[in-house]
Order: sequence, then structure tokens, then C-alpha cells
Amino acid sequence: MSVRLASPEEYAKLIDQYDTWMFDCDGVLWHGDRLIQGAVEVLKMLRDKKKNVLFVTNNATKSRKSYKGKFDQLGVEAKVDEIYGSAYAAAVYISSVMKLPKDKKVYVIGMGGLEEELKNEGVSYIGGTDPADNTLEPFLLENFTLDPDVAAVVCGLDTKINYTKLSKAFQYLTRNPGCQFLVTNEDSTYPAAHGLLPGAGAISAPLRYALGKDPLSIGKPAKTMLDCIQAKMHFDPKRTIMIGDRLNTDILFGQAGGVSTLLVMTGITTESDITGPNASPIKPDYITSSIGDLLKFA
Amino acid sequence: MSVRLASPEEYAKLIDQYDTWMFDCDGVLWHGDRLIQGAVEVLKMLRDKKKNVLFVTNNATKSRKSYKGKFDQLGVEAKVDEIYGSAYAAAVYISSVMKLPKDKKVYVIGMGGLEEELKNEGVSYIGGTDPADNTLEPFLLENFTLDPDVAAVVCGLDTKINYTKLSKAFQYLTRNPGCQFLVTNEDSTYPAAHGLLPGAGAISAPLRYALGKDPLSIGKPAKTMLDCIQAKMHFDPKRTIMIGDRLNTDILFGQAGGVSTLLVMTGITTESDITGPNASPIKPDYITSSIGDLLKFA
Repeated sequence: MSVRLASPEEYAKLIDQYDTWMFDCDGVLWHGDRLIQGAVEVLKMLRDKKKNVLFVTNNATKSRKSYKGKFDQLGVEAKVDEIYGSAYAAAVYISSVMKLPKDKKVYVIGMGGLEEELKNEGVSYIGGTDPADNTLEPFLLENFTLDPDVAAVVCGLDTKINYTKLSKAFQYLTRNPGCQFLVTNEDSTYPAAHGLLPGAGAISAPLRYALGKDPLSIGKPAKTMLDCIQAKMHFDPKRTIMIGDRLNTDILFGQAGGVSTLLVMTGITTESDITGPNASPIKPDYITSSIGDLLKFA
Repeated sequence: MSVRLASPEEYAKLIDQYDTWMFDCDGVLWHGDRLIQGAVEVLKMLRDKKKNVLFVTNNATKSRKSYKGKFDQLGVEAKVDEIYGSAYAAAVYISSVMKLPKDKKVYVIGMGGLEEELKNEGVSYIGGTDPADNTLEPFLLENFTLDPDVAAVVCGLDTKINYTKLSKAFQYLTRNPGCQFLVTNEDSTYPAAHGLLPGAGAISAPLRYALGKDPLSIGKPAKTMLDCIQAKMHFDPKRTIMIGDRLNTDILFGQAGGVSTLLVMTGITTESDITGPNASPIKPDYITSSIGDLLKFA
């Protein structure tokens, strides 16, 4: 059973109990371009109490550096090193875990942020924002030259998804022996400022379906993301809490990593997802209405 | 167990046994733009013997009328009324089974052939080949006006698939109460002249994934396609045979409809799909190498 936080004493106890605070961003700290009330003050309060603050996001359209621009624009204090995005984690995975040889490359379905993180990690790539791949012109297999050095396809949210990109990725995954299929994250939707739109999981769905197999996913809830954080900093899981708005990404991610979890109701999860007849089996340790509630400690 | 046809007597018996011959096209009669040897002669032989010949295709990019152009171009005799395509069947389903009211419309992800069949059946639609929906420009929800009259989304193979179409379809399916989700067919790939490319099932996969639910599928192997044929002509299932190259569409379709099935090995199915360690559980009644084998009767 989840604890519904309510009294000042409960909030005070929660804050005392954890040293490392991992935040999902969209739906927790902001909605699109609108800050959630109290978010800035809560982060300041935690920093004043010498807590570690981290931001763990599945957003793969932005690099960590450009994602920091979003924090700056909304007036939320953050350092690049505190931001863990799924594009960054995918690049680290390819360079450090897969150990992609220097003469090999990846084919990218994704946007500039994913390319930037790959570049930072020294990973060669093709596709992505290349104008030749961002077209609605017919894709003709007879005019396509398979690059034998493509050893992986990495797919993130790509709002310029098209048949040429899908067809090229499909050729690499079926014709280059051992070519790996990675996705930055599997979110079915993402919360834009004015409503939900198809997410990164939806963008990779045509390849899953055409191949009849699932990719390796990097972002929440996959453990790969936590491995990436652990490689960069020390934290004690027993004194760490993950705060998010999605049961099947944020909360599952925390649980899989052995850290505590706090669900906020300012994002995608509704009361019926928790208590309704078709409630999720995923139960967070704590539930509160909004991140701003943490200011109620006494 | 499937019977592997070999002797002239076996072919002769097969031909005697069936009055109605339903053919898949791609992989059976042709590959892209190349005829399969003997296809024209076999069809002529069957017509000379006064057999009913039908063409049952999941291709939804062409209307029956323009699909007939393909037959003409390859020198294969066919009448428009003998051609059953999934675009036609989808249009018939929407007008005759769903009975879409005249003041309602469908949102189309698909190409000109699907639009043509909808028009022929008197179904109003938006999307499809509309230039406004065939763009790689950013989709902004705040600039989108939901049309309350869209009562269904129908999705077929669309080689101009893009984020605007996916996002609009997603809005209709999540925000218009009761909006139905239909797909012309679920083929994961399709055989282009120079290899496999992602099929109609892959094009609808982002919506399935984002919605977390499966659409109603019209084409093979769904029974909707057979219902559509039955509504237009009489045939005795006991004296009918379906010939195809795909176990999970053509052969399954025949079996679900209670007709006999013949698998040809000129398309997607390999010997290991039949006898290998991961063989399909779907077993056709008969197997032969190529449609041209039917000329071997004596």
C-alpha cells in the first residue's frame, strides 16, 4: 500500500529520510512551458538542506546541454551534470557498454539532441537530421546503398519520422548481420503543452512490428539509465527517492533500482489508475498531489 | 500435415476439386513488376475450365480500378469485379457494416487508392493525400482544430506517413467519443521489387502503441474480407481454394473462412517456416513450389 502524504510531520520525515532526490521533469516540475507551482521553491529547499538533486528524463530530443536551456528559461536551477537524459544514456551505452568500434557507426532515427550526445561520446552516426533522410519523397530500395559499417540503429522521439528513415533502419536491422536495435525510451505518449502526443515508443513501433522483435530500451524504466547514473556518481539506494508522474516509467524505474518512490498527481496518472477497477499493479511508496506539497513540512 | 503436390495426377485432382480459386497476387502471380513464370497460363487454363477466379489482396494503396492497371500492364487478364482489395473492403465495411451516418467522416492515413474506394462507397473523409497533412513541418496541437464529425480513423499503407498524420489520428481516437480505429490490413512487411519494406501493419503500429489497443483489421487474415466477398458473390467453401505465399495472412485467411489452402514458395515463406525448429503452427492443405506447377496436370 502506498502512503498518502498529508501532515506536515509526514513531509518533514520524508525530507529527513532521503539524501538523493531524483526528479522526472515533465509532469512533475513543469507541463510543457508552464512551471508547476512550488517546483522552484522545493528544489531550493532541498539544495539548502544539502540534498543531492538529479533530473532523470526520457526526453531524447534534447541533449543535456540544450535541456539545461529549458531549466534556465523556466528559472529552475540545474547543472548539466545533474541532468540524465535518455539520449545521453544511449550514447554512453553505445560507447561504453556496447563498445562500438571506431570504424562502425549507428543509424539514427531521432533529433538534434540525440546526435549531439552521440558526438560528445565519440560515436559516428548517419541519418538523424540529415536532409536526405528528412523527406516525404518515395523511398526506392534500388537507389539505396547499404552501409556495411552500420552496427546499430538507435531510435528516439523524432517528429520528422518518415518512410525513408523507417525503411533504411529496417534494411540495416535485417541485412547487416548483428545490427543492434536500441531505443532511447518506450514512452507511448508525451505531454506537450496542450495535450498528449505520440511518444518515442510510438516512433519505434513500426520497426518493432516489421521486425517482430523488441529493441533494447535505455531510458526509464530500464535499468540501463540507473547504471549510467551510478557510473557517474555515488548514491545510497536506501537514502534515495525517485519522484515521478508515471507509474510504468518513473515509479517502475525507481523500484527496479531499489530506491524509494513518490508519485505526484500533476502528470499522466489519474486517481483511477491507483484505486480504480483496472488499477495498475505498480504501487509507489508515497503519493502526493503535487511537488509543491513538500513545502508543507514543519 | 500438408500435402506436397508433385505428380501430374495430384495436380489434375486438385484442379477438378475446386470451382472457385482465390489468388493472393504479390509473391504468387508476380514480384513487384516481374511476373512469376506460368502465372498467366495457369489463370488462362482455369478460366478455360470455367473456374471462378478471384484476386484477394491486402494492397490498400491502390483502388481496385487502378490495381487492374497493374494486371493489364503485366498482361494478366482480370476484371475489376474479380479484384478484392483491402481498401475496397474497408470502404464497404465503413458504409455497409458500420453504416457511418452521412454527416460523419473518417480520418485517413493512406494513399489515393484508399480515398478512391471511400469516395466510391460514398464515405466522406479528411486527411489522406491532403497536402496539409503531408508535411514534415512541426505539428502544433495549439493550432489544431478537432473535427467533431470524425467518427473513425482508417489506416493503410502510407509511404508519406509523418508525425502530423499520426498526431491528428491520435487526437481523434482519444478525444472524439466512440471514434473507431480501423486498419486495412496488418502485414508487417510488403515485398517491393527489390526487397522487403515496412508494411501497413508497421504504419499503424505507432497508433496501436500510443493508444495501447489494437484496431479492427479488415484485410487477410480477418474474416471481414471474406464477408465482403460473400456479400458480392456466391461460392461453396468446400469447392473453394485460397492460394497464397504467406502463412499468417493468406493461409490463415483461407482456414478461418473454411476454404482449402495452397501455399506457394515464391514469396515470403521459406522451407524452414514449414519444417524448421521454429516452424509456424499454420499448416496449409497443399504446398507447391510455384503457381506454374499447376500446368503439370495430366
